[in-house]
Amino acid sequence: MDLIWIAPAGALIALLFAVYNAYKVKRADQGNDRVRELSGIIKQGANAYLKRQYKTVGIFFAAVFAILLILSFVKPSGMPEGLINVFTPFAFLTGGIFSGLSGFLGMKIATAANGRTATAAQNSLNKGLRVAFSAGSVMGFVVVGLGLLDTSLWFILLKYAFKLDPAALSGAMITFGIGASTMALFARVGGGIFTKAADVGADLVGKVEVGIPEDDPRNPATIADNVGDNVGDVAGMGADLYESYVGSIISAVALAFGAFGTVQEGASTDGNVIFGKMMVPLILAVVGMICSVIGTFFVRCGTSTEQKKLLGSLRRGTYIAAGLFAVCAFPIVYFILGKENIGVYGAVISGLLAGVLIGYFTEYFTSDTYKPTKKLAKSSETGPATIIISGLSLGMRSVVAPVVIISVSIIASFMLSGGNFGDGMNRGLFGIAISAVGMLSTLGITLATDAYGPVADNAGGIAQMAGMEEEVRDRTDALDSLGNTTAATGKGFAIGSAALTALSLIVAFTQRINMMGGDFKFRIDITNPVTLVGIILGASLPFIFAAMTMDSVGVSAQSIIGEVHRQFKEKTGILDGKEKPDYAKCVDICTKSSLRQMIMPSVLAVLAPVVIGLILGPNGITGMLCGATIAGFMLAVFMSNAGGAWDNAKKYIERGNHGGKGSDAHKAGVVGDTVGDPLKDTSGPAINILIKLLSIVSIVFAYIIMNYYLIKF
Amino acid sequence: MDLIWIAPAGALIALLFAVYNAYKVKRADQGNDRVRELSGIIKQGANAYLKRQYKTVGIFFAAVFAILLILSFVKPSGMPEGLINVFTPFAFLTGGIFSGLSGFLGMKIATAANGRTATAAQNSLNKGLRVAFSAGSVMGFVVVGLGLLDTSLWFILLKYAFKLDPAALSGAMITFGIGASTMALFARVGGGIFTKAADVGADLVGKVEVGIPEDDPRNPATIADNVGDNVGDVAGMGADLYESYVGSIISAVALAFGAFGTVQEGASTDGNVIFGKMMVPLILAVVGMICSVIGTFFVRCGTSTEQKKLLGSLRRGTYIAAGLFAVCAFPIVYFILGKENIGVYGAVISGLLAGVLIGYFTEYFTSDTYKPTKKLAKSSETGPATIIISGLSLGMRSVVAPVVIISVSIIASFMLSGGNFGDGMNRGLFGIAISAVGMLSTLGITLATDAYGPVADNAGGIAQMAGMEEEVRDRTDALDSLGNTTAATGKGFAIGSAALTALSLIVAFTQRINMMGGDFKFRIDITNPVTLVGIILGASLPFIFAAMTMDSVGVSAQSIIGEVHRQFKEKTGILDGKEKPDYAKCVDICTKSSLRQMIMPSVLAVLAPVVIGLILGPNGITGMLCGATIAGFMLAVFMSNAGGAWDNAKKYIERGNHGGKGSDAHKAGVVGDTVGDPLKDTSGPAINILIKLLSIVSIVFAYIIMNYYLIKF
Repeated sequence: MDLIWIAPAGALIALLFAVYNAYKVKRADQGNDRVRELSGIIKQGANAYLKRQYKTVGIFFAAVFAILLILSFVKPSGMPEGLINVFTPFAFLTGGIFSGLSGFLGMKIATAANGRTATAAQNSLNKGLRVAFSAGSVMGFVVVGLGLLDTSLWFILLKYAFKLDPAALSGAMITFGIGASTMALFARVGGGIFTKAADVGADLVGKVEVGIPEDDPRNPATIADNVGDNVGDVAGMGADLYESYVGSIISAVALAFGAFGTVQEGASTDGNVIFGKMMVPLILAVVGMICSVIGTFFVRCGTSTEQKKLLGSLRRGTYIAAGLFAVCAFPIVYFILGKENIGVYGAVISGLLAGVLIGYFTEYFTSDTYKPTKKLAKSSETGPATIIISGLSLGMRSVVAPVVIISVSIIASFMLSGGNFGDGMNRGLFGIAISAVGMLSTLGITLATDAYGPVADNAGGIAQMAGMEEEVRDRTDALDSLGNTTAATGKGFAIGSAALTALSLIVAFTQRINMMGGDFKFRIDITNPVTLVGIILGASLPFIFAAMTMDSVGVSAQSIIGEVHRQFKEKTGILDGKEKPDYAKCVDICTKSSLRQMIMPSVLAVLAPVVIGLILGPNGITGMLCGATIAGFMLAVFMSNAGGAWDNAKKYIERGNHGGKGSDAHKAGVVGDTVGDPLKDTSGPAINILIKLLSIVSIVFAYIIMNYYLIKF
Repeated sequence: MDLIWIAPAGALIALLFAVYNAYKVKRADQGNDRVRELSGIIKQGANAYLKRQYKTVGIFFAAVFAILLILSFVKPSGMPEGLINVFTPFAFLTGGIFSGLSGFLGMKIATAANGRTATAAQNSLNKGLRVAFSAGSVMGFVVVGLGLLDTSLWFILLKYAFKLDPAALSGAMITFGIGASTMALFARVGGGIFTKAADVGADLVGKVEVGIPEDDPRNPATIADNVGDNVGDVAGMGADLYESYVGSIISAVALAFGAFGTVQEGASTDGNVIFGKMMVPLILAVVGMICSVIGTFFVRCGTSTEQKKLLGSLRRGTYIAAGLFAVCAFPIVYFILGKENIGVYGAVISGLLAGVLIGYFTEYFTSDTYKPTKKLAKSSETGPATIIISGLSLGMRSVVAPVVIISVSIIASFMLSGGNFGDGMNRGLFGIAISAVGMLSTLGITLATDAYGPVADNAGGIAQMAGMEEEVRDRTDALDSLGNTTAATGKGFAIGSAALTALSLIVAFTQRINMMGGDFKFRIDITNPVTLVGIILGASLPFIFAAMTMDSVGVSAQSIIGEVHRQFKEKTGILDGKEKPDYAKCVDICTKSSLRQMIMPSVLAVLAPVVIGLILGPNGITGMLCGATIAGFMLAVFMSNAGGAWDNAKKYIERGNHGGKGSDAHKAGVVGDTVGDPLKDTSGPAINILIKLLSIVSIVFAYIIMNYYLIKF
């Protein structure tokens, strides 16, 4: 039997497991009327947002689809096969649709689970955890299932229906990430702007101006804030991680051809043997998915709301999944790639380890159980200025850990896979790509623990708004806090895998350029000024992108603040609880504003490689990709960790440290948290997608860039 | 006559002009007893700091000197001549001493001029301006004079006394920047920590806690704040720009050999002709210096304190100098390099223009006469969080201008100088290096307008403390404000030239490595994982360095705050004006703390290339330099501009906008300013030096790195 059928079968298992978890959620008690009402409003808002978002994105997708279609038919003479291929436009669509679908389904279940989690938490902590975690699992396995389905179906289609040879298949598939990446960028940016604008807006008027607590039902923006959690932290993250997952698999499949399909000594020229080796990333992903399913059954907790114990109960699941995967990956590499390539197993494990370690250090820098965030909280005593300076410094310092881990992992996976500067170059590069697959192999469960967070957060909001007892609030708070930590870990994975995948894509780009060869001298040399200029321009892109998205949050937050002010002024009874605020209006304004603000940064990401490429040519564009990837990696880590640490420092103060709630230190802490919000939930995560999208766009337009660029010496 | 003698003669002219300006300052009225007393205390504190700083740095210099000396004698067999040479240790010393001396003399005159400026401002605005500007001119021409002296004397010594051929001379001189860079880093970091710790400390206790105005004599830290302006903004900046100036000249001299001394078709092999061409950077620098002298005579103002007019009077001088230089540079290039290389003139002008443009855009992003800073000031209305987010975004967005300008300038100077990927490569690279010389050619006067700022700032402080009339305060305030703008322009030059020089040094490094050649395959290819890892590690260095220096400011500020609290508590009469605070104690604490905090970041800068080099080898180190330069460039622009904009936004609010002094918007503005302080005056400027020092250290240790590195595939 052809091994490839394992992949769609795996996809089916993952999706069935998601359905099973969805059933578990649906089975849970929906709660009382008030809970259902609140839940309903949130759901409605989130649906309305997504609907409008998909409409906006749809126009963009239609335009790009048309361009790709034209490009794939208008084939200039002498153009090699499989460069811009006729499949790309359609793969662009499937990637975009599946990525969007991942976010949509994840959000559907999250909005169904929030009230149920709050209600279950009335019974016991464990019941609350189980409902929220089941909802997270739906998201985790939908992403993995759809990702496997998308990649494996295309693989099968190209191989059997269109009968492409391995070289053409690898060339075609490398462009297939563009749809997922574009969708992910829109979802992350749009959702990220929405969630943080609502959050900042609600806080600035509610907490700071009027002095009512978070999630108070009198605040007209509070529902928008909850909707934001769903469209940003759930739908946005789902689309994002779908893209990461698919991106890592696709680039490993494409580079596998380079490693095993070509001039390598002793390599078989039998197409089927090569196809078999190209399937390894897919099969590893399936195995990781099954290990993740097993892991989920080990997630349960006792009655203690102590963070360490709670975290332990989630960690147990992820560690078991990772351990199982480490064992099962060995025979796969051994039997499919053969004894002589067993080093690839080392690359897979190095990726897996790197992910775990980056997660650990992200937690170290952002959790208040460790020194850095404790010190940060202390700096609030001398006011907002010092907590900001300390937070910026903490974020910058924190880059050292992922930088070293990724560096070691790159070198290790290159060397272990038999990389060298002769024949083994391509094997080594494949090693780097496969290490990203290793890192994301257990995404099913790591994403489940991550996506669980916003559900718990929403549950807390609903518990507060529905006036549930103190004890329930304590439980949902504990679950929410836990969610912050797992979110940090999740971000670590997203950043680490983004760096590895982006580097693999750059490699794929240079290979593609070199394949086109001709009289072009490809020389990515440091002393080539075009390359240097490319690196400089590239490095500036994440900065500009971050600035744009941060500004967008500001602009959208202002529009929310204006609306809340209007409502307080016109409906004077709101603050006394006599009049009901107009929640829907806030959601609507936030939706419009964030969708408008989403356009420009996304367009920048798609146009920059084309424009820079047409001016500087292939050398410049390679430099640009390199500069953008590396500056983006630093900025993403810096922004995510600074934001995470500010958030937790504030929570630490709120638990009674340095004066506790209401003290000046707390006010300073709130400033830090507010500054950190757009950094960690809008700009930072979006940069991960940006750097990959830049590479993929360059790959898709490689032929045009190579033939029509301006600066030639 | 040998053209080279023009350089030391030029040095002499510059130094004499500095003496003339010093005489003008000394001739001015020293002011009344109170002014002299205050001036004296500041001077004493600054001297005490510098003395201790030089002692600390001295130990470090002695150690490095010993290591260099040993390395230059223990020559492994097979090592080519002129790689680590016997001159390096001594040039290390002269560079360090001259760089330190530049700062020292600049500070001497600045501390002599502050009281005199305040006193002269009692007569008229123009008189105040003239005294402060004369003091700035001393600094400007000391830096230029010593820089010319250092480089030209070594050139002469190596050529005539040691009879080196052009190749050996170029190889030897490229290492000579190490002394100046090391000294500059210490001075910038140490001085930067001092000045901002004192500033932040004084503000946090004085303005925020006790509510007394800036520069109030009752604040024990106020003198430390003034001392800080002198040791940081004057002595630190002097050492810094000495390093930039010398660095740009040296790298252009070294790359000139590559461009004109070797295989170039039709090139003369006559040593003297080549020497002549290698002198072009020095001679251009001399001409620029003379144009600067002429420019200074056009600096004068009327009675209006309006910023635009005041700025115009300073600008007149710099524009005249630049215009003259543009005219005079032509015959020099034409007659020395010959008609066939006249394109080099274009490179020089492109550098000159780039400097002016970067200065303009720096002003655009940081001055409150333009939209960005006005918008930033407006964001203070919604509190400290929004002004911080907006400032971060402004800083990140502002990288686009220098990035585009430098990119265009690199490509233009490469192409205009006849660069291509064949024989012309080295000519093009020389073009990039000479454009940095063009940018800094009129440093004499640009630095004068820059160094004038802290003198005016101090004068304002003294006028306040000495209780001078309102009118005088208005004049010194106007002069001080102007200083902020010129400081921003100066930073633009420092950053732009740092990027160009650092890139030239990287090129010099790769040339050096290739010269050593052998069986080593030099391949700076994007698909080389060692290079990639080098870039990643390199890009993280500026982040880590920035974090360390920001933390240092925090730690030192805390010690000042503690001391001021102690004094207020023990001497209860201070705040009523009945008891005198102990200014000296604050200065002393700041000195100790900043010197202690200076060590680690500086050691990082020197050790990182050696450690990374010994692990990753030449490919990795080249990647590292590239990553550090480009990430450093972005961060430096981001930090400087964000800080500058916050500073001016606060001043804009203080002038009565958005509620004016004492309003909530003003409080938010103060938070922004305080956050920006370490960014713009400590971390940002120090990064410029960091990126060059990394390159020079790599060059000096190139031989060792090449032969003893760990990771070889």
